[in-house]
Amino acid sequence: MQKGLLIVYTGDGKGKTTAALGMAMRAAGHGLPVCFVQFIKGSWHYGELEAVKRFDGLIDLHVMGRGFTWKSEDREEDARLARQAWDFACQAVDSGRYHTVVLDEFTYLLHYGMLAVEPCLEFLARRNPDQHVVITGRYAPEALIGAADLVTEMRMIKHPLKSGVRAQRGIEF
Amino acid sequence: MQKGLLIVYTGDGKGKTTAALGMAMRAAGHGLPVCFVQFIKGSWHYGELEAVKRFDGLIDLHVMGRGFTWKSEDREEDARLARQAWDFACQAVDSGRYHTVVLDEFTYLLHYGMLAVEPCLEFLARRNPDQHVVITGRYAPEALIGAADLVTEMRMIKHPLKSGVRAQRGIEF
Repeated sequence: MQKGLLIVYTGDGKGKTTAALGMAMRAAGHGLPVCFVQFIKGSWHYGELEAVKRFDGLIDLHVMGRGFTWKSEDREEDARLARQAWDFACQAVDSGRYHTVVLDEFTYLLHYGMLAVEPCLEFLARRNPDQHVVITGRYAPEALIGAADLVTEMRMIKHPLKSGVRAQRGIEF
Repeated sequence: MQKGLLIVYTGDGKGKTTAALGMAMRAAGHGLPVCFVQFIKGSWHYGELEAVKRFDGLIDLHVMGRGFTWKSEDREEDARLARQAWDFACQAVDSGRYHTVVLDEFTYLLHYGMLAVEPCLEFLARRNPDQHVVITGRYAPEALIGAADLVTEMRMIKHPLKSGVRAQRGIEF
């Protein structure tokens, strides 16, 4: 049995986006194209961007929205941008061009109510059965976990930023 | 405050080696060299190997041992190979040539008693203070977690191999 998986990396620990990045590069290593849709602006920096360039266009990176913050003063505008971003992701999934579509930090849009969970899950359930989709971000809703094939929770056991070490080039970004 | 971090990805979930791979490629994206020492043979396949080749020698991959199994009939030979692999890793750490040294699946050697934990931690404590080290694998001993700066536990919430889907190219390998 071989099928497109819905993979979720959630939890408050490090490594969710990094694991998705590793998966993207592994697929690209096979020559398989990947679409990486970033729902929160600013999670990728120079290191990731340069790394992706090494894969000769096999990894398409798309940055969506204006950096959803869940603290926005303008919830309507947030919801509009969230729907726009989701529509774009749906097109990537439906295009059939990609082995894997990564929806990076997508869970926040569900968690903060910028998108309704059920229609998103219905779309994912109807997708091409070969299509792998990877979703990252904290607070994955229970219904998403229920719908997923593979779910890993990254739990923060210890974090150096709590003990005064600042983010460092090549490590945090 | 800037310092070399000891980073641990542990737990029974997916994404430990993949997150380390993502970190290696992110550092290499910055032009920073990485040494990836693999303590369990066979965890890397074609996808990872091809991906790493895209970084023009910035990521050195070294496969150690004969695939420690913790079921070996010959514990003395295992312990000898484990020490040999550890010595190699120590040289990589001491060489000063790498921004990050990844000890992939290293925890098993500690967990299964092929190496003593304390001397390993003493070596890591004495390393160059700028040197980042990433250790992956299940069953990270408490003392290693105590010594680390950043620890994430990958918890398996759901796994498709349990529901009969086999490992797939570009996803599992």
